[in-house]
Parts: sequence; C-alpha cells; structure tokens
Amino acid sequence: MNKNYEKLLEYIEKSIAMSSALAIFEWDNETLAPESAIENTSKIMGILAKENHKALINDEVKELLATLEQEDDLTLTERKTVEKLKKEYEQLNAVTAEEYQEYNELTAKSANAWAKAKEQNDFSVFAPFLEKIIAFNKKMAANRSKDEGSIYNVLLDDFEEEFTTDVLDKFFEELKKGILPLANKIKDKEDSINFDFLRKDYDIEKQKEFNRFLAEYVGFDFSKGVIAESEHPFTTNWHNHDVRITTHYYKNMPESAIFSTIHEAGHALYEMNVADKYTMTMLAGGTSMGVHESQSRFMENFIGRSEAFWKPIYSKLQETFPENLEDVELSDFMKAVNRVEHGFIRTEADELTYSIHVIIRYEIEKMFMEGDVNIDELPQIWNDKYEEYLGIKPENVSEGILQDIHWSQGSIGYFPSYALGSAFAAQFFHKMQEEINVEEALLDGDMAKITTWLKENIHQYGSSKNAKELLKDVTGEKLNTKYYIEYLTEKYSKLYDL
Amino acid sequence: MNKNYEKLLEYIEKSIAMSSALAIFEWDNETLAPESAIENTSKIMGILAKENHKALINDEVKELLATLEQEDDLTLTERKTVEKLKKEYEQLNAVTAEEYQEYNELTAKSANAWAKAKEQNDFSVFAPFLEKIIAFNKKMAANRSKDEGSIYNVLLDDFEEEFTTDVLDKFFEELKKGILPLANKIKDKEDSINFDFLRKDYDIEKQKEFNRFLAEYVGFDFSKGVIAESEHPFTTNWHNHDVRITTHYYKNMPESAIFSTIHEAGHALYEMNVADKYTMTMLAGGTSMGVHESQSRFMENFIGRSEAFWKPIYSKLQETFPENLEDVELSDFMKAVNRVEHGFIRTEADELTYSIHVIIRYEIEKMFMEGDVNIDELPQIWNDKYEEYLGIKPENVSEGILQDIHWSQGSIGYFPSYALGSAFAAQFFHKMQEEINVEEALLDGDMAKITTWLKENIHQYGSSKNAKELLKDVTGEKLNTKYYIEYLTEKYSKLYDL
Repeated sequence: MNKNYEKLLEYIEKSIAMSSALAIFEWDNETLAPESAIENTSKIMGILAKENHKALINDEVKELLATLEQEDDLTLTERKTVEKLKKEYEQLNAVTAEEYQEYNELTAKSANAWAKAKEQNDFSVFAPFLEKIIAFNKKMAANRSKDEGSIYNVLLDDFEEEFTTDVLDKFFEELKKGILPLANKIKDKEDSINFDFLRKDYDIEKQKEFNRFLAEYVGFDFSKGVIAESEHPFTTNWHNHDVRITTHYYKNMPESAIFSTIHEAGHALYEMNVADKYTMTMLAGGTSMGVHESQSRFMENFIGRSEAFWKPIYSKLQETFPENLEDVELSDFMKAVNRVEHGFIRTEADELTYSIHVIIRYEIEKMFMEGDVNIDELPQIWNDKYEEYLGIKPENVSEGILQDIHWSQGSIGYFPSYALGSAFAAQFFHKMQEEINVEEALLDGDMAKITTWLKENIHQYGSSKNAKELLKDVTGEKLNTKYYIEYLTEKYSKLYDL
Repeated sequence: MNKNYEKLLEYIEKSIAMSSALAIFEWDNETLAPESAIENTSKIMGILAKENHKALINDEVKELLATLEQEDDLTLTERKTVEKLKKEYEQLNAVTAEEYQEYNELTAKSANAWAKAKEQNDFSVFAPFLEKIIAFNKKMAANRSKDEGSIYNVLLDDFEEEFTTDVLDKFFEELKKGILPLANKIKDKEDSINFDFLRKDYDIEKQKEFNRFLAEYVGFDFSKGVIAESEHPFTTNWHNHDVRITTHYYKNMPESAIFSTIHEAGHALYEMNVADKYTMTMLAGGTSMGVHESQSRFMENFIGRSEAFWKPIYSKLQETFPENLEDVELSDFMKAVNRVEHGFIRTEADELTYSIHVIIRYEIEKMFMEGDVNIDELPQIWNDKYEEYLGIKPENVSEGILQDIHWSQGSIGYFPSYALGSAFAAQFFHKMQEEINVEEALLDGDMAKITTWLKENIHQYGSSKNAKELLKDVTGEKLNTKYYIEYLTEKYSKLYDL
C-alpha cells in the first residue's frame, strides 16, 4: 500500500470512530435517553464533533491529500477515498473546530427542543434554535461557495452531488406539471375511497409484532439490526453489521407504522448490503441521500403499496387484527392505503401529493438561504404555501412547520432528496422490471429476488459510485423524470377511474 | 482560574468524552446491539480507547501535572482533580496507546464471548480471551508496581485505594471466622424455610411493571435514568443526569429481578445524587467500587430485605401476582427472600454466604496474579474451592467459573469490593440508625428520609473523598468489620432460631 495513503487511513479511522460515537448518541437521544440528559450529553457530543474536525482538518491531512492527488499508484478505491475525503475536508474546513463543536452541541439540543415544541404546539420553543441553525448554515455555505451562484447549492451538493438549484428548479417544474393537474382532478373524488376500518383501535403490542414480521419479510436481518421507536422514524448505523431503524405507532392509524417500517427497512437494506470491503472506510454506507431515499421510497411505495406484495401476507394482517379487518377485502385495503388525500403531513402523504410537500420545503429553504427571512414569519409562509399548492391551511404549527425533524438536526438541503429519490426509484424500477418479473416474485413471496437485484446493482457499491454514476450504470441514462410521472399517472388514473 | 489548570481541563474534557462514548457502546452491547455487530464495533471502541489514552498521556499533560503539583493557588477541588489525574496518568502510562487500543478491542469482544460461552456452557469459548486479559493485566500491573509486594495490589488499588492484599487477607479472615461457623450451623436447617411460592410462574411483563415501580419507590428518578435488560445486571452512566440500570427477569424466580433492581438502583442513586458541580469533571461519579457496592448492597439488603421496607408495598406485589401470593403472609415472604442457601450463584446468594463467594474469587485472582496458573485448570480450581468452603460442587461451568461477567470486561481486583462494600454498608447503617429512625421511615414509606441521609453524607461528594475519608467523616472510625459480623449474626440467629 502507498505509504502516504496508509498514513491517511489513521486519520480517517479516528474520524470514523468519532462519527460513530456521535451516531450512537443521536440514536440514543431519539429512542431512549431520559428527559434531562441532553444538557450534558450535548456537551459530550460537541467534543466528539470537535475531535472529528481535528482528526481531519490539520496540516498533515492537507499535505497528504495534496500529495496523494498527484500519485499514480493508487487503486480505484483509494482514489475514490481521497476524492471523498477532499470533499469532506472542504466541508469541515469552512468552520473552526470550536465552531463545529458549538454547532453540534446546538443541533443535539435542537432535536429535543423541536420535539418539545411539536408536543406543545409552540413554535417559539424551537424558533431560537432554528434561527441559529440557519445562520450557521448560511455562514458555512458562504465560506464554501466557489462561484456566484446560490449558496443553497453548497448544501444541496452535500446531499446530492451536482443537483443544483438550476437542476432542481427544472425537476420540480416537471413534477408540478405532471402531478398538480392529476391531483386536482382527484381532489373531488377523495371521499370515494373508504378507510374507516383503518381508524379503529389497533393494539400497539400487536402492531409491534406485525411490524417486526414485516421488516424481516422485506429482508431486514435482525442479526445485523435493531428496530425501536422514536417520534420521527429514521435509520442510522455505525457500520453495515449494525443498522438501526425506528418506527412510530399510532393506535388509530396502523398504516403509519407499517409504511414507516417498510420505508426505513428500505434504507436499512441498502446499508446492510454494502460490500464488507467498504466497512468502516470512507466508502461505507449509501452514496447520497437521494439514492438512499430511492431505496426507502422504492420499498415503501413501488413494492409496499402494491397488491402483489400484500397478496401472500394480507391474511396475516387480518389474523392479527380480525376484529377490524376480517371482512375487509384485500382490494379495499389496497385502495385505502393508496388513496390520495390533500393532507398536511408529508410522512403520511400519498405518493401523488408527496412531492408537493417536498416542493414547498424546497421553496422555503431556498428563500431563507438566498435572502433574509424573519424566523417568526416562517409558520405563515408555510401555511400560505399549503394553501397555494394543496388548497388546505394547517390549523397549528405541529401539523405545519414543526412536523419534520430535519431542520433541527441541521439538515438543510435534505428535503429535495425525497423527491429525487422517488424519481430515481421509478427509473430503477423500470429497469428492474425489464430484467426480472417483479410481480411474480412478489406473488411468490420471493422478496430475495428483488433485494438481490438491488444489492447487485446498487447496494454493494456503497459510496464508491455517486447518484449520477449509478443511474448511468444501472439504467443507461441520466435522471429522466418521465418514468416517475408515467408511473404516477398510470397508477392514479386507474385507482380513481380517470 | 489558574492558567495551567485551565489548560489541563481541555485534556480532561476530551478524555471524558471518549470514556462516555465507550460507556454508551458498552451499555448498548449489553442491552441492545445485534449479534453480529461486535466485530466492527469493538474496533470503534478500540479507537475511542486509544484517543482517551492519547488525550491524557502526552508531554503537555505530564508537564502540566508536574507544574500544578507545585502551585499553591489551587482550590481544594482543583487539587483533588490533579491528584486523581496523576493516578490515572500512572495507570494509563503503563501501556502504550496502541496496546490500550488493542486491549479495549479485546475486552469489547470478550464480553460477547463470555455470554456465548455461558449460554453454551463451554469454557473453551471464553478461555482464550481470559488468557489474554490476565496476561495484559499482569504485564500492566508489573509495569506499575512500585514495591516488592504483590502485583495484585496494583489492581486492587484501582478499585479501592489502599486496600492491599495484606489488608484484605486480614479482612477476609475476620469474615470467615464470623460467617463460616454461622453458615455451617444453618446448613442443616436450610430446608426449614418454604419458598415454593417463588418458583411458580411470574409473568415477565408484570414483573417489569413491578420492578419499574420498585426502582421509583426507592428513589430512582426516571427523568434522569433508564431501566433495561441484560444478561448480567449492571449500572452505568455518562453523567449524573443520565444513569442507567439493567435487570434480568426469570419467569420462575421473581426475587432475582426484584433484588437486582433494588441493588442497581442503589448504585444509580449514588450517581444521580453527586453534586452538579462535579458533573463531567474528574470528581464526578462514585469514589470507588467498594463505596459503590456499599450503596447498592445497602439498598438491596439492609433496606430491601427488611420487613419494614415491604410492609407498605407487599400488598402491591400480592395484587400484581394474586395467583401466587394472595395467601402468602408477609412474614413468610420475608423468610423466603432471606433464607440461606449454600448455592452456586453469587448474584443470587443470601447475605450470609455471599462473602464466601467473594472470598473464593479473591483467592483465585490472587493465585493467577501472583503465580502461573494454566487457564484450563481454572474451572477445576473453582469447583474445588466451592467444595471446600460451601460443601457443594458446580455441575457445569455456567454455574461455576462462567457465572460472572467481570473478568471478561477486564475487571480483575473488583470482586473484593462486594465484600468490602457490605462491610462499609453495615458501618454506615449503624451510624445512620443513630441519627434517624430507619425502621419508622420504612414503615411510613418515607424512602426520601433514608436517601437524603445518603445524599448528604455520601453521595453528594462524588469522588472528592475516597473510601477511607468517607468512613472517617461519616462514622468517625476506619473500617471496622464488627458491624457487619454483628449485623449478620443477629439477623440470621433470629431467622433460624439459633
């Protein structure tokens, strides 16, 4: 091995240990930590972040990177590692170790403040945190920005390389053109689908049992993973042999946990299936949030909301809740879990209106990243956009601006990944169907056929290919929105007899 | 603040963050982590340990310590901090950062290997790990040893300052003299107490509910703590606002979880009640394992096994398990949970034979620390000692040498703390009874009266006083074994009508 590269690995190794420690504290904060822990725990997390910064941002690493960029005896993996580290170097180098420490202490506390604000339906509890988070991100993005374009691009690039505001503006315009007319046509027909049976009492313990079964059914390997509960469902991991998902149970809305579980299991499968040779390296883990969401939203929607998927297992759901589902036909269940609803909550949204929720957040992020927005005006801006696009007005901040955890964690620029992910998923799905008979596999309960395809084509590569390269290698073309629009049009035209 | 001291705090802060991260991974490994995680996770833990080592063992810290020892403008807290860090410096400096990394990787894996060996009842699964752990500790102790005495003293001193083999040999001789004749007299009467009702089926979910109540009843504050399950019950924390205990439920042995919960809650109260001014400093947390065990064993035995404690809450236990306890009088329940049994398992042992279990481990540790013992002979040595002292012979390694987790975690020299703790507890208890009416408080369900006494006299000081200082300040004398022997003699003579 190249001697300089070997030296570099020591710094990377330390950084990975610090990030892993941060990740387990984050996991613990969301799933288990007692109420009054965060004040001190956030200090520990700040120090771990500072040490992560110090591990990578120093003269030795700078020199090693400069030298290694010139050397020609690196393997492909080594070269990719150097590239990726260089990007991370530029990202972290925009702030000092102490600023980074302070920011991580802030975001650790913010997630708790957000949960409290949401619970108390009081934006003012979270507003001061959000204000600081936005200010930090604007400052950092401005420091990192290399051209005259939007500083929002800097953050967008962290979640999906090369998907700038220019690309996204165009992408979202296409989505609007494809989705809004369809959604409007359906709006008057929303009441035509009955879902009363999903609003009855569903015992939480039985839900847990069924969701565990479901995770395992789609391929989640419990010898390498854990399922727990949190306010906002999420997936995390420190390596590919310890991948964790959460879900959230509601007594009168069983489909919430069901589709969260399938969604998060989609993320988890991606992480579990990355080749072991990348474990605990810079190339470990999913390559971008867009591709990650393509895997979770593929599993949740393209697979999890299809009748073929439920055919072999619907009877198990009925047996778990006979009092509610005994007399409900599979076809009626499928209509209910696919119905369109112009609603407030992104995570509960149907596939059709889903991207509209994302567009609203994208427009708001762009607004506060590019200009000056008074934090206190954000709830009103939010509500106005819901009225404009979906014709509905949130009645309180908990179902409005406070519904999502992401900003509290400092994730600005993340939301577009959800829509991009859906479009990637449609494109991958189209290709998959050319190569294997997906419907037959589902009817046979042969999920492995599908997950093996995903592993071979996408998962195994970890971060060694970015989204653009993956799309190209797997589907032979770059992002093409038509697959997603066609999929939605066909699905919903059929469901609502348009 | 003294400038040099201020500089030192930065190193300490980093060390605390690394130890906290190690602690949360350990907690997670024991309570939640999936089966195949440990291989990679142990690497992360090794790196965290190495960074902890590097934070403290370097020329800057060495110089700062040397300078600060001479300065006379330090507060008492600062001076104690310097002393404590000096001790830790000497401890860590006995090995290189890389050796320390390797050792921590080893112990992380060992705890899993131990659990597997115990489950499979196969010593050979754990033996190679134990061999390495002993070798490391012998090497480290030899490097640190300052005199010609036993190198075992080095390890003993880490758990209880100044309690060397000389002191402990004498202490254990006194215990043997006080306990063995009593235990022998009782041996023939062991069958006189009925405990059949404790071997019926106790629903695990109901046990969990009751144990949660119990923890809260003795003062465990769930806004600062968590209760979970693990193979071997333990307590851990990263600061005094996040203290975690575990227990272990057996369907046909409800008293196991009950007294584990009270025991661990005793540890937890100590950590929760340390003054906030010590939080996340070198003086945070309980001062020694001996004093820690004095708090846990005090709560478990002196309080938790007394009739006055159960008087206000026994009806709740009966209501939780009416099918088993409805017709069992409190006095019979008390006899059953206090009965003497010459058994194999330390953690399930009665108060009287308990110290014999500890003596056996002490003698074995002394043996392998001072001489060469073939690892494969340990199970036999173990069994022979049980026959010698308790007149019983373990039938397998799971109830023999594999029963305790400590060696797998590298804790050699820990066991004497359990016996010392019991003796400390008796001495504290004697003093407490002079100052407050303990029985009355218990009958009134006024646990706060007792925990407030503990907080004011012991807990609040954290590590700012060591065991000897605490004993002196609280009871006015040094360790005096007579209180413990008297307590046992009185209690068991009465119970068995001797």
